[in-house]
Amino acid sequence: MTDLEIANKSKLQPIQQIAENLGLNVDDLEMYGKYKAKLPLDLIDEDKLKQSNLILVSAISPTPGGEGKTTMSIGLSEGLNQLGKKTTVVLREPSLGPVFGMKGGATGGGKSQVLPMEDINLHFTGDFSAIEKANNLLSAIIDNNLQSKTNSLGIDPRTIAWKRVMDLNDRALRNIVVGLGGTTNGIPRETGFDITAASEIMAILCLSSDLIDLKKRLGNIFVGYTFDKKPIYARDLKAEGAMTALLKDAIKPNLVQTIEGNPAIIHGGPFANIAQGTNTVIATKMGMSLSEYTVTEAGFGFDLGGEKFLDIKCQRANLKPKVVVLTATIRALKYHGGADLSALKEPNVAQLKNGFPNLEKHIENVQKFGITPIIAINKFNTDSDEEIEAVLEFARLKNIQAAATNVWGEGGKGALDLAQLVIDSVDAKLSDFKPLYDWNSPVLDKISKIAQEIYGATRVEYAAKAIADLKRIENLGLSNLPICMAKTEKSLSDNQKLLGRPKDFVITVREIEIAAGAGFIIPITGTIMRMPGLPAHPASEQIDVNEEGRITGLF
Amino acid sequence: MTDLEIANKSKLQPIQQIAENLGLNVDDLEMYGKYKAKLPLDLIDEDKLKQSNLILVSAISPTPGGEGKTTMSIGLSEGLNQLGKKTTVVLREPSLGPVFGMKGGATGGGKSQVLPMEDINLHFTGDFSAIEKANNLLSAIIDNNLQSKTNSLGIDPRTIAWKRVMDLNDRALRNIVVGLGGTTNGIPRETGFDITAASEIMAILCLSSDLIDLKKRLGNIFVGYTFDKKPIYARDLKAEGAMTALLKDAIKPNLVQTIEGNPAIIHGGPFANIAQGTNTVIATKMGMSLSEYTVTEAGFGFDLGGEKFLDIKCQRANLKPKVVVLTATIRALKYHGGADLSALKEPNVAQLKNGFPNLEKHIENVQKFGITPIIAINKFNTDSDEEIEAVLEFARLKNIQAAATNVWGEGGKGALDLAQLVIDSVDAKLSDFKPLYDWNSPVLDKISKIAQEIYGATRVEYAAKAIADLKRIENLGLSNLPICMAKTEKSLSDNQKLLGRPKDFVITVREIEIAAGAGFIIPITGTIMRMPGLPAHPASEQIDVNEEGRITGLF
Repeated sequence: MTDLEIANKSKLQPIQQIAENLGLNVDDLEMYGKYKAKLPLDLIDEDKLKQSNLILVSAISPTPGGEGKTTMSIGLSEGLNQLGKKTTVVLREPSLGPVFGMKGGATGGGKSQVLPMEDINLHFTGDFSAIEKANNLLSAIIDNNLQSKTNSLGIDPRTIAWKRVMDLNDRALRNIVVGLGGTTNGIPRETGFDITAASEIMAILCLSSDLIDLKKRLGNIFVGYTFDKKPIYARDLKAEGAMTALLKDAIKPNLVQTIEGNPAIIHGGPFANIAQGTNTVIATKMGMSLSEYTVTEAGFGFDLGGEKFLDIKCQRANLKPKVVVLTATIRALKYHGGADLSALKEPNVAQLKNGFPNLEKHIENVQKFGITPIIAINKFNTDSDEEIEAVLEFARLKNIQAAATNVWGEGGKGALDLAQLVIDSVDAKLSDFKPLYDWNSPVLDKISKIAQEIYGATRVEYAAKAIADLKRIENLGLSNLPICMAKTEKSLSDNQKLLGRPKDFVITVREIEIAAGAGFIIPITGTIMRMPGLPAHPASEQIDVNEEGRITGLF
Repeated sequence: MTDLEIANKSKLQPIQQIAENLGLNVDDLEMYGKYKAKLPLDLIDEDKLKQSNLILVSAISPTPGGEGKTTMSIGLSEGLNQLGKKTTVVLREPSLGPVFGMKGGATGGGKSQVLPMEDINLHFTGDFSAIEKANNLLSAIIDNNLQSKTNSLGIDPRTIAWKRVMDLNDRALRNIVVGLGGTTNGIPRETGFDITAASEIMAILCLSSDLIDLKKRLGNIFVGYTFDKKPIYARDLKAEGAMTALLKDAIKPNLVQTIEGNPAIIHGGPFANIAQGTNTVIATKMGMSLSEYTVTEAGFGFDLGGEKFLDIKCQRANLKPKVVVLTATIRALKYHGGADLSALKEPNVAQLKNGFPNLEKHIENVQKFGITPIIAINKFNTDSDEEIEAVLEFARLKNIQAAATNVWGEGGKGALDLAQLVIDSVDAKLSDFKPLYDWNSPVLDKISKIAQEIYGATRVEYAAKAIADLKRIENLGLSNLPICMAKTEKSLSDNQKLLGRPKDFVITVREIEIAAGAGFIIPITGTIMRMPGLPAHPASEQIDVNEEGRITGLF
């Protein structure tokens, strides 16, 4: 059975029931259909959330074999609930880019899914659309200001850093020229579209504490310079009020349910390779206000989503995770060990062991933050017992807890061992979170620290554009912002071909974008793009709606 | 008080209550918050809807003075309900372009509004976003096919007729070049964005009877030609299934309420100047299935929305409106009579009478369809009694029923006279709807008939591009489709400066777009643009969110 077929066979409870189980009043809900609801921000309780145990699910460097971090988060949450711990899983919203492209949906898999999966994977409650519209309203206002004779701020079109966004994989929009066609059709200039998840508005939504904080950050968005070199922010264009109005519902987190009828909160953006890639501060705090345990995820490998979660989000919101679960699969470890994609189903302990250094580096990285890592093997039925045992043996040698799980096939039941390890680790109070770097240290030091200590690079090189950008950041007084690296997710390095645990490599920073509103700066490394493309045969070709109005072919 | 302040002071009923008043089961509703709900399509009852009386609210040619067609539709609906006729008002969804640009929202005004006005004017239930995404998914698939080595259809990029859309006024996107930046970033080509309301997907949604009909129409979208001149449709790109999946909720009409607690259904697209500009067939049929009277509107003057409503929508869906209400204001008539915008508040019967020929032409146009027109004066407190009397006298001379209404100030109470005229006209069975032209007549004849009989033109001229387009339409076998003119709304002619009742003018068709999926062809006349621009000081500058999270400055 496909994930969609399993989802369709699951009996959903009315979302009011899920809310009641959380101790909520049904009047607090804003319904979106029968199985989705938005939660008001005043349910966040700063005292209660301090009692909750925050568990971060991360992973080794992703491979085409699949790791299943979302599936693991959901399965672990079901397992914790089965062991009597009131647990909410807090996830990120899927982007339509991968849904119609290659990666598929982001609602878990098998018996560890959040429901209703079609709705969550398509428009959900409209948050992405609202973010996209707020982003592109600012763009329209900028281009309108260039065109205006009576209201001009004198912006130099060549300096505009703000791009439009679209939540699709659409490579033809990466580099475009707008404003063609004569005097009535705008001022011609080069620009482009990023994918919506990479919008600074997404990051602002993810890091804001409330609507007024959101508005202030929107006003702080850096737009570009005037011809006489004065910086222009969104507030200079009087754009932040209307942008906030567009986001008034998007700021509220979304409540749905797991297959086993446990609560799931889904809110905020994916793509930890090109964005911050964690769910919203509001969603995490909401989960923690309502539950003993809150299981959350951060995108891609621990080097990307994990590092950003801890250095940007946890510092910003004063959160202290107690465990990091590192998801790994036998298949992915073999791929890191040099196995062909076509051979991942065949048992091969030697290649598996060749892949351990990738896992080892992520373990070391978690430990640099003072947090206990636990290895979770996401089992596939092609894995041999000998292979599983090899990973457990590796963990024992490293003195790390590890469990083999079957979350895809069994849901929470397949994650009971892992859930018990998590509870034991929390109870033993082993973790004492400390960030990797001080936000106030120099920009070059912060970038170097991530590149050298987390990625394992020997040093960082800066292209001419990046050096000019560094100067600009200093002049704008933004040097004290944290770092949100844009880097391929496929390697610990910035070269996607270097698998395992690469050594003796250099990280190249091509340019550095400014997210003055979100409050971070974005060094762009290697050849990473902030707008993906579709494959030759996009997943959209398989998606259909049958005679009964049911969606088919959505994975 | 502003419209928003009046709206905020209104006490809303839970939407379940509105649904119960319509005889619906609460389980039929898909809630979107507490005051909006989507209705399932199976509530449409072809037998019941034949018993319902369909009233179309249209208007004279719009002016900057404002006519208030939506306000009149809502007020009339309240008035009919006050007179004991179970009535639903069926409206179009607002576009964010005017909300952030110049025109403002589209939820009525004063005491004749639909609620919650902020939600309806912003994202509402996500229908526009879904349409935009489905449109742009097809664009991404087209550009991806150009780039593909293994899955190429051989599309000639110079022939692609399909544009992207965005629901904002953004003139810089009218003419763009995409695909720049080298081999990994697509194939460079000229293209552009229209506003989302002008998307063929919007028209398809408005004209479809159900999800399967929608999918078929989506597959029929004409994309362009291959290098060897073979036409390519969306179905050749296997795009229609995923596009349908994106629209599975957007196809369901939205139930809200009026200030007086009567039902309002809002669904489908505005912009009758550049699109078909009427709400969906599904929404109209839903209203008619649930009520004795259904009051609906069509965009801009009767020459645009009215003509399209009758020739495209009513023919397609076998609907027979019984009355057309022509909305007029004293201010607008004076403007048509030559008064300055700044002088519209000053009584001036001579200039008012100079403006009557515009009203007269719209009356004649309604009569060409065999339908009884009723004039509704939308009163402003600056109108003099003598001016009102002059319009009523004009109507008496023409043997047309007319009523002065105060829908802004009094809601339904201000429209009781009008409502009684409508009831009397329906009871007298005066109308016998017949369309203006036969769909099967030649394309040139159909265009001429609209231009000459409705607009009053002497003849139609075709630019070279339009002549080539006509040839293409013939070759594609699409000559039997109805006509959806794109023309300025400000004049009966295609020159926005010609007010009143222009004579001795020529309509110039610049080019003709094909909407093979929606099932019409679009002659583009004069200098009309399918993507508006923002004014020097956009309305967005006034929109804000206050400390309590309430939106302000939205009109």
